[in-house]
Amino acid sequence: MSAALTVNSYFDDKVKSVALENAEGVSTVGVMAIGEYEFGTSQKEYMTVVSGALTVMLPAENEWKIFAKGETFIVEANQRFQVKVSETTAYLCRYE
Amino acid sequence: MSAALTVNSYFDDKVKSVALENAEGVSTVGVMAIGEYEFGTSQKEYMTVVSGALTVMLPAENEWKIFAKGETFIVEANQRFQVKVSETTAYLCRYE
Repeated sequence: MSAALTVNSYFDDKVKSVALENAEGVSTVGVMAIGEYEFGTSQKEYMTVVSGALTVMLPAENEWKIFAKGETFIVEANQRFQVKVSETTAYLCRYE
Repeated sequence: MSAALTVNSYFDDKVKSVALENAEGVSTVGVMAIGEYEFGTSQKEYMTVVSGALTVMLPAENEWKIFAKGETFIVEANQRFQVKVSETTAYLCRYE
């Protein structure tokens, strides 16, 4: 594996992440600034809150759910989901 | 707080992190590529493995200790410590 680490930036630099690949699989670890975002998935995603909290509207749900530090939500491939961030939050996103 | 997120890079881009500040305090979340590193602290640091593992020689210790996903080690301010990374690893570093 190349040592160079890839940084990705989204939503006018309000979401930034660093990619990694290890025994757990392919992931990104990153930070979301305060704001509201809509994400689309191309693979199944396991999103874990590392610090802070995310308020999430999952696909096919009609209520916002709060995920606190250490909690994980799963989004299938080719779905869209909304996230409200009321404090700057770190996350781990594992792709499957 | 500004929405712009700061990315830091160390050791020829083999360690990259994104800074955040929230109710938990000031932290960085980042990735270490495979390698060996020596870090110095300017504040007390709480280092938590988010994905992967770190093999660490803490200050004043004489044995390497392995920290797995979810485990935390603490380093006081103005100390140096060594880290061996045998798989690409994500971490959360909280400063106090």
